[in-house]
Amino acid sequence: MKQFFITPPDRALEQALREKIDNLTKPRGSLGRLEELALRIGLIQQTLTPSLRQPCNLLFAADHGIIAEGVSVSPKEVTRQQTEHFVRGGAGINFLCRQHGFSLVVVDAGVDCEFAPGSGVVDMKVRRSSRNFLYEAAMTPDEADLCLERGAEMTDRIRNEGCNIVSLGEMGSGNTSAAAMWMHILTGIPLERCIGAGAGLDSEGLARKRRVLERALAAYSGDGSLWDRLCHFGGLEMMMAVGAMLRAAERGMVILVDGFIMTACMGAAMALHPAVAEYAVWGHCGDESGHRLLLDALGARPLLSLSLRLGEGSGAVCAYPIVESAVRMINEMDSFREVEVTKYF
Amino acid sequence: MKQFFITPPDRALEQALREKIDNLTKPRGSLGRLEELALRIGLIQQTLTPSLRQPCNLLFAADHGIIAEGVSVSPKEVTRQQTEHFVRGGAGINFLCRQHGFSLVVVDAGVDCEFAPGSGVVDMKVRRSSRNFLYEAAMTPDEADLCLERGAEMTDRIRNEGCNIVSLGEMGSGNTSAAAMWMHILTGIPLERCIGAGAGLDSEGLARKRRVLERALAAYSGDGSLWDRLCHFGGLEMMMAVGAMLRAAERGMVILVDGFIMTACMGAAMALHPAVAEYAVWGHCGDESGHRLLLDALGARPLLSLSLRLGEGSGAVCAYPIVESAVRMINEMDSFREVEVTKYF
Repeated sequence: MKQFFITPPDRALEQALREKIDNLTKPRGSLGRLEELALRIGLIQQTLTPSLRQPCNLLFAADHGIIAEGVSVSPKEVTRQQTEHFVRGGAGINFLCRQHGFSLVVVDAGVDCEFAPGSGVVDMKVRRSSRNFLYEAAMTPDEADLCLERGAEMTDRIRNEGCNIVSLGEMGSGNTSAAAMWMHILTGIPLERCIGAGAGLDSEGLARKRRVLERALAAYSGDGSLWDRLCHFGGLEMMMAVGAMLRAAERGMVILVDGFIMTACMGAAMALHPAVAEYAVWGHCGDESGHRLLLDALGARPLLSLSLRLGEGSGAVCAYPIVESAVRMINEMDSFREVEVTKYF
Repeated sequence: MKQFFITPPDRALEQALREKIDNLTKPRGSLGRLEELALRIGLIQQTLTPSLRQPCNLLFAADHGIIAEGVSVSPKEVTRQQTEHFVRGGAGINFLCRQHGFSLVVVDAGVDCEFAPGSGVVDMKVRRSSRNFLYEAAMTPDEADLCLERGAEMTDRIRNEGCNIVSLGEMGSGNTSAAAMWMHILTGIPLERCIGAGAGLDSEGLARKRRVLERALAAYSGDGSLWDRLCHFGGLEMMMAVGAMLRAAERGMVILVDGFIMTACMGAAMALHPAVAEYAVWGHCGDESGHRLLLDALGARPLLSLSLRLGEGSGAVCAYPIVESAVRMINEMDSFREVEVTKYF
């Protein structure tokens, strides 16, 4: 398995950061989570004057073999259609990226088609669709390693162009099935509680999804290691996002975590390299059944809870202005030393 | 009492708005609260293509007579100091206004000092400080009416300059006491549960605040009408905010509601004119004890929950980008009719 070298941020600066935040002209603690965020980002960037530069949403797309079992209301062709749609600019993630000044990089991790040259989709395809994990491993360990490498390469590209805060998103019909399997593997929560309606299954569809995933879990005959199980039940876009997250932590970037799928990916990244969690800002708790449970299991408190269940990075990008507020707070507010306001706490 | 003429938005457009939102290229409902917001704002503005123009934070400041009883950790002089500080630009609300493109209008509703001409503070002073409601009514009905009128005038000023979305904020040492009294009056929730630590009282201070407010409630000997009780226990900046809210609804503006104090003010506005609620977007649930209870009692579901307890309009302004996202969604996303994406739900 590809290795990453992630060190937690040096906490020597923590005291100075706390003092700076506590001396801003407000009752101590009264800016709540903005204060926590300012501390976290100051530590990640090792400075009392953090800054956010060239935010980027990496959006990984891939198809899933398990979709053949009728686990999704979204037909497979939607993966290709939406991936092309992202590049054209009229999808959900596009207006959010425009609003918040994000560049959007759309990456083909494993869509089951060939995009035309010049399509605007970055070709990192590892294979056309993962395999159907009801019958065989979704990807081989070598393919998974290639996903990690290519995800890391995508992070390197944006980092080298100046980005220091990245959000990750995904597109892949069927991927709530793979993410539910990862959630079960990572947390031990009974599989049934990890499975939700995805893009909009009715109760019959949800029952079928549960039966398929329970059968897939029972049929698994790998070596039982974490890595083998992640490969067996994963998605190519998910594994590539894990690689992107791990490299982002390695390079000291802030990682904005999106909804259910990306939370499962950050969970996988944390299981492989726990220190990655220090670089995470949890963006959003969505409506997919299981997401709240998964966040709780990971000790994550997301910034938003807006009932989004779109994926694409939408919840993470929506949370960005709050992160920016935290950075502005620590840079722009006066301290009690500078102005005539009685410090009363 | 000054009258306002507020009509709820015509719902004839609701069906067309819902259809437009449902045909955007996403699983139906998958943008959650953004979809609700787009519907609400479309109805307020009576259009399928809503827009937000010249957002403004009206920040009303006043002193409170009850502070003489030791109900606040924040000394009285902080009201004046912070009011001047807002105009200079280094306070909490300032960086948020800059970030989100809000103008900030700082209004003296009743600070116990005279601001120098040219200070930048808009002089709408009704009197220097409310009276101490432990012994007498905080304001007379005439003074309260003047507050409503002047609040309405502030809304007119910004509306006439093009603003169609307003957030309200407040500054006033001691105002969580007045807001707790209003909460009790408006909801019937036992007073003890309406009282919190404000800017940072310790348990001894909190116990004193409770004793003072219980005594004030017991000592009340007015006519028992809602209006009389709001005047008796209110704050000048709070009553002025009520006037600003009511006029904003009258003129078809979106009203962003901030934290505990402004929630109590919107509650008062709703008690006087229920239709004002149709124009409200609830921004934030804060940490002041009682705020969640008050929101629940008003049937309000705020967008954010970031543990802010600063006031000033901070939580409302923080929520603005989510409102903007909703407006961008309905204007910028492609519909299934326009692009080749299979509609699968």
